[in-house]
Amino acid sequence: MNQVVDFINVHRDRYVEELKQYLAIPSISALPQHAPDVRRAADWTADALRGAGLQNVRLIDTPGNPVVYGDWLNAPGKPTILFYGHYDVQPVDPLNLWTTPPFEPTVRDGEIFARGSADDKGQVFMHIKAVEAFLKQQNGSLPLNIKFFIEGEEEVGSVHLDDFVRSHKQELAADVVVISDSPMFDRGIPSICYGLRGLAYFQIDLRGTRSDLHSGSFGGAVANPAFVLSQVIAQMKDRAGRVKIPGFYDDVRPLSEDERAEWKRLPFNETRYRKELGAPKLFGESGYSTLERVWARPTFEVNGLLSGFTGDGAKTVLPAVAMAKVSMRLVPDQLPDKIADLFEAYLKKVTPKTVELKLTRMHGGKPWMTAFDNKYVRAAGRAIEQGFGKAPVFNREGGSIPVVSTFQEELGVPSVLFGVGLPDENAHAPDEKLDLGNFHNGIIASAYLYQEIAGLA
Amino acid sequence: MNQVVDFINVHRDRYVEELKQYLAIPSISALPQHAPDVRRAADWTADALRGAGLQNVRLIDTPGNPVVYGDWLNAPGKPTILFYGHYDVQPVDPLNLWTTPPFEPTVRDGEIFARGSADDKGQVFMHIKAVEAFLKQQNGSLPLNIKFFIEGEEEVGSVHLDDFVRSHKQELAADVVVISDSPMFDRGIPSICYGLRGLAYFQIDLRGTRSDLHSGSFGGAVANPAFVLSQVIAQMKDRAGRVKIPGFYDDVRPLSEDERAEWKRLPFNETRYRKELGAPKLFGESGYSTLERVWARPTFEVNGLLSGFTGDGAKTVLPAVAMAKVSMRLVPDQLPDKIADLFEAYLKKVTPKTVELKLTRMHGGKPWMTAFDNKYVRAAGRAIEQGFGKAPVFNREGGSIPVVSTFQEELGVPSVLFGVGLPDENAHAPDEKLDLGNFHNGIIASAYLYQEIAGLA
Repeated sequence: MNQVVDFINVHRDRYVEELKQYLAIPSISALPQHAPDVRRAADWTADALRGAGLQNVRLIDTPGNPVVYGDWLNAPGKPTILFYGHYDVQPVDPLNLWTTPPFEPTVRDGEIFARGSADDKGQVFMHIKAVEAFLKQQNGSLPLNIKFFIEGEEEVGSVHLDDFVRSHKQELAADVVVISDSPMFDRGIPSICYGLRGLAYFQIDLRGTRSDLHSGSFGGAVANPAFVLSQVIAQMKDRAGRVKIPGFYDDVRPLSEDERAEWKRLPFNETRYRKELGAPKLFGESGYSTLERVWARPTFEVNGLLSGFTGDGAKTVLPAVAMAKVSMRLVPDQLPDKIADLFEAYLKKVTPKTVELKLTRMHGGKPWMTAFDNKYVRAAGRAIEQGFGKAPVFNREGGSIPVVSTFQEELGVPSVLFGVGLPDENAHAPDEKLDLGNFHNGIIASAYLYQEIAGLA
Repeated sequence: MNQVVDFINVHRDRYVEELKQYLAIPSISALPQHAPDVRRAADWTADALRGAGLQNVRLIDTPGNPVVYGDWLNAPGKPTILFYGHYDVQPVDPLNLWTTPPFEPTVRDGEIFARGSADDKGQVFMHIKAVEAFLKQQNGSLPLNIKFFIEGEEEVGSVHLDDFVRSHKQELAADVVVISDSPMFDRGIPSICYGLRGLAYFQIDLRGTRSDLHSGSFGGAVANPAFVLSQVIAQMKDRAGRVKIPGFYDDVRPLSEDERAEWKRLPFNETRYRKELGAPKLFGESGYSTLERVWARPTFEVNGLLSGFTGDGAKTVLPAVAMAKVSMRLVPDQLPDKIADLFEAYLKKVTPKTVELKLTRMHGGKPWMTAFDNKYVRAAGRAIEQGFGKAPVFNREGGSIPVVSTFQEELGVPSVLFGVGLPDENAHAPDEKLDLGNFHNGIIASAYLYQEIAGLA
């Protein structure tokens, strides 16, 4: 491995120059006028895979943007890693908040600023450069098989991804999926993420009367849907922060003692966290730490409220309707559809007959986790330790990455989230950036990953 | 009185033609471009008072639109009636919903359609025509003293009225105020209103964090201000519809048995009422009828809610802030400032320390009532019976007319609300209208009012 690492070290500056070309392509999948750029980024990705020595490189059509595929499958009997990432990027508004233009990649203080630097071109390119170094230094040979699966619709909800995975199970078959599309735990603290929360999202609409009424003439005679909505929502959680929907916790996988012990060791400062968020006080389900609440416990949140008069001043309206967007973050082994059924039944029970109730199921996503002690998780941890010179922490995340569940279900494959971004990387905001030290260490870690995972076979 | 009534009957058509001129003036006080029209309506009103035989007619400047004043004070030792009304009108949007243009008064099926027909030019003009008939037929003499006080800012909140009344106590001194600016109880059911609810209106702002957060990454770690707002609001009323603010009911004047008995006799159909509102069910404070709830009981209402994401679709935001507009309708003898203090104390008590609370006192108005058996109320009732050929019902209203409290406090004078509009008059909506039969009967009733009130002295 020394030769590989030496090669990576020697070519450090070239990698940055190449990455700049990649980042200069404004492949914004959400904006139709950027369709040619999205295509150009797909082609650029394919060329980069070819240049690294991957085989069978091609663009595979989908009803949307093409998937870029490439593989190296010349290690029969050895494990196969599937690398997943995306070449499309977020929009850039508001443009005036960027220090330098989003598609003119600029290095400042060891960080490269550009849209897509962290999310996700930089992290995709990191894995591509590891393959290149390995093949160049090991006589064109890898100790295992690898596949690259880079999509172009992640920033618009990966709308065609599930179908694609389902219809390409053979091409995508692997032993483990490696995804680098997330931040590390903190600056200087590399991490492996092995669990994500799921989601069940709803809209509640209550109607009290045919139209808005004068609150003087009618106040007191009919139920006020905004008040009823408040009553209904208030019944979703108790004072201790526990969700009151009957059966809600039935399928929650308890935190293992090993996990709790590992997370207690994490350098997490509640006071700093609270101050950064600007919250007067932290609050969550009693009996759990903040990290446990966010990573391993489900929650009920109100995402939006709208009713009646919301402008300046005082309008004495008795609203006809009231609307709430609410969602539950789910943890293994809660199922979004089952939770939706439980929620709907409880909602119907607690909503009085004085209003008409309409519940819309908006969106669902399954929670996911690879076992805390899974061998691939641990192998990735060792690779990171070699790349970063520091043992990673093992964490879960509170958010959702739906594709991970798809891989689990359709391919029956565990995923390892090996992200080298930073919490302040501004992934969907102005001044998105990637630390070039992390990028460089990530290339080395990615190369060590072959060795570590090959060693498991 | 027969001569007076004969005169009114003979000039019925002329009154309508004159009213049309009045209604053709687009005196919309809310729109600056109509300032000249507002002034024109003031002049027209003054000319109408002069034409009717009133004396000392003049426009009195205010910091806003002028007050039109006129009097006839040649009955020393006799009571004085102060007629209050307004010559300004509401805006007319949406214009396309008007069957005929709002300032081209049109008679259809015995009703005159125009902005201001019911609110309030038609009802002001009714009292002016009664003076004219009386003076013309009684040799220029009235059995009592009268004053007209017609303002031009009622539709923009009567912003200068309190100051005006305070600084013109002498000019406005009277024994009773008569106001015709409200609907009658129902078509064919003339009514006298002797009580109104007051108002205490607030905005609640809760802040949980500095900025909106991702509900996946942070959901469960901090209080959700939209959820907390729901919890807080839910604690304002119990299941029986009673307000839970400690001390809230302390000053509520109980309904008298006479009032309850009178209201029970009213032709009020709860099923029809419910169906007209389109409510699945009526709901209000237990132990009271719908009319009692609206007219004689205070209430807590949510007028508006806003937090987080309220557009189409599902955005997984954990809102930083949540806002509610809430108000309480008050009844005699609740005081808005005292209620505001009680509310603020309770709100602070029930709001957890996990959020920052800001309470803004938006608007207050005192409740008002003239005693159910007040002699002027009863005299007005007899006048209406003579005008309409039917005894009126005596009711209160759920809304607020702040000027009535001002008259009570500044002039120490009771008011009688003698409205000839209809519940479907569309006062602030397209196709505003006034029933010409009610207008005509109202002129006769107004003339009888002099006799009835003069007879009390």
